[in-house]
Amino acid sequence: MAEPARRIVLASRPTGEPTPQNFRSEDVPLPKPGPGQVLLRTLWLSLDPYMRGRMSEGPSYAAPVGIGETMVGGTVNEVIASNNPDFAVRDIVLAHTGWQTHALSDGKGLRKVDPKLAPISTAVGILGMPGMTAYMGLLEIGKPQSGETVVVAAASGPVGSLVGQIAKIKGARAVGIAGGAKKCAYVKDELGFDDCVDHRAGDFPERLAAACPKGIDVYFENVSGAVFDAVLPLFNPFARVPVCGLISQYSATGLPPGPNRLPVLMRAVLTKRLTIRGFIVSDFAAKQSEFLRDVSAWLKEGRIKYREDVVDGLERAPAAFIGLLKGENFGKMLVRVAPHQAK
Amino acid sequence: MAEPARRIVLASRPTGEPTPQNFRSEDVPLPKPGPGQVLLRTLWLSLDPYMRGRMSEGPSYAAPVGIGETMVGGTVNEVIASNNPDFAVRDIVLAHTGWQTHALSDGKGLRKVDPKLAPISTAVGILGMPGMTAYMGLLEIGKPQSGETVVVAAASGPVGSLVGQIAKIKGARAVGIAGGAKKCAYVKDELGFDDCVDHRAGDFPERLAAACPKGIDVYFENVSGAVFDAVLPLFNPFARVPVCGLISQYSATGLPPGPNRLPVLMRAVLTKRLTIRGFIVSDFAAKQSEFLRDVSAWLKEGRIKYREDVVDGLERAPAAFIGLLKGENFGKMLVRVAPHQAK
Repeated sequence: MAEPARRIVLASRPTGEPTPQNFRSEDVPLPKPGPGQVLLRTLWLSLDPYMRGRMSEGPSYAAPVGIGETMVGGTVNEVIASNNPDFAVRDIVLAHTGWQTHALSDGKGLRKVDPKLAPISTAVGILGMPGMTAYMGLLEIGKPQSGETVVVAAASGPVGSLVGQIAKIKGARAVGIAGGAKKCAYVKDELGFDDCVDHRAGDFPERLAAACPKGIDVYFENVSGAVFDAVLPLFNPFARVPVCGLISQYSATGLPPGPNRLPVLMRAVLTKRLTIRGFIVSDFAAKQSEFLRDVSAWLKEGRIKYREDVVDGLERAPAAFIGLLKGENFGKMLVRVAPHQAK
Repeated sequence: MAEPARRIVLASRPTGEPTPQNFRSEDVPLPKPGPGQVLLRTLWLSLDPYMRGRMSEGPSYAAPVGIGETMVGGTVNEVIASNNPDFAVRDIVLAHTGWQTHALSDGKGLRKVDPKLAPISTAVGILGMPGMTAYMGLLEIGKPQSGETVVVAAASGPVGSLVGQIAKIKGARAVGIAGGAKKCAYVKDELGFDDCVDHRAGDFPERLAAACPKGIDVYFENVSGAVFDAVLPLFNPFARVPVCGLISQYSATGLPPGPNRLPVLMRAVLTKRLTIRGFIVSDFAAKQSEFLRDVSAWLKEGRIKYREDVVDGLERAPAAFIGLLKGENFGKMLVRVAPHQAK
């Protein structure tokens, strides 16, 4: 009996924040693998802020998803049929098959995942794109030195949580920013950051300043907006700002009202000799093995922790994604599309 | 007979653009060198945009000039009396004695200038701080590759003119931005830039785009404001932006009206993976000998040219400086404080 197959496509482009109406669920025939192909069942779908960018037209570092096309996304999949000698049924692979229950692949771009090494969901989390984003941005651009202060927002999320924990491993002071007391407590008490500041507090800028008594040497930028405005006056000379995301801006329909704060930033760049550098994780693809080696080791040694926020069923992906953009998730946002029965 | 001695002090802090009333000329007794000291006569005073920053209070990379204190500035001086065995009368030195006709020094921080090597005024120009700013910012941060496009504003000035000429030496396309047809013609025809665009033209953004058919890989930022807004959409992926000055902002009394364009910049930083880095020339002090070696050689080989804009007499320094901030100078702005009689 063939499994029921389903996908979620982009129904329309959002104006501002996405709504459930921007997505459409479609039942589709279960695809049949041709020569050299494998049939993949999606086990885990990763939901990440960058997907908001793919829903819009306009220049970015990647092409937008077309109307009626399956939403893109990183996935962990199980091989359920194979005409490819490199892959056996029940193999677990890291793929990019997007928001759908099944997909065909010729094997290119698949990476086998060893379920004995770590839970397979980590392949799209701490040992995947978010983890590597944290690792590369912090170590290749931020370059924290012992005794320096590293600040990161969305600190309970998959990128921010690793940024702070690696900062601690490198001997720096780690200060997180998160939304709400519960997340802040987790960041401080569970992840071991030196401090965590609630950006929803009315006196957030003052609290952030108090948490960074020696200023800020590295600000890992993944949210932008009001958080960046509070960070800006605290930079020390020669501070570094890796920029991997701007969650607060993704759904903006226009520019915020004035005054124009661009000169404030440029003046800080000049007088404090800041380095601001944008990156995406694939820019550092050549260093992936270093990342996997270090972070796997730290995981095994218990030096870093991670947290997952799981919803069950592909049909819940749109609501979970909309919540993610509002900061409603608590940990790495994942959709369990199908259960994994270990061999 | 003692020479008449004079200095120009900061009379009051400017609000917005400086006016002549912010300066005051004072006759002072000719100082007498004590043990180990030399008496210096100022021959050349360099006028540079950074001086506007020193007239204001507030945090910058250097302390402000106090009210009633002599305005700071780089100078080329002649030793006219010496109690210091390291310096003889008639020696020419590079110093930082500011806006005054005479000064005492214990010899520390003085650098001898060889009048046979190049005109001594170049010690505060192409072979001095402005030249080194261009050299370090372009080569250490901008890192132009052969075939890339380098854009620089204030292209007829001492920094911009060298940025473009070094870019050409490195095999890049050099596009200048300058104010008015006369300066643009000089930049193109005399300095050998591939193109130069008049920022006063109504269709400046379109003209700049036309001058950069393959986009912009390095933008050497020294003016900010409307020029930067026109540059921003033209950046290629991985473009570099050394920031050494923000002339258009120095006299701003508040922020420009909205909308807030900061998100535009941050989005470009992310999607194009820009590197924006502020610097001041002293950050690269360790590499001064490389700079002097290269630029002296290029000068001798006739591969680079420079232009000076000279006013005579210390009393004309305030008006010349006010004009400099408005872009009224044409070449390196210098005050000939006293004539130099070669040995």
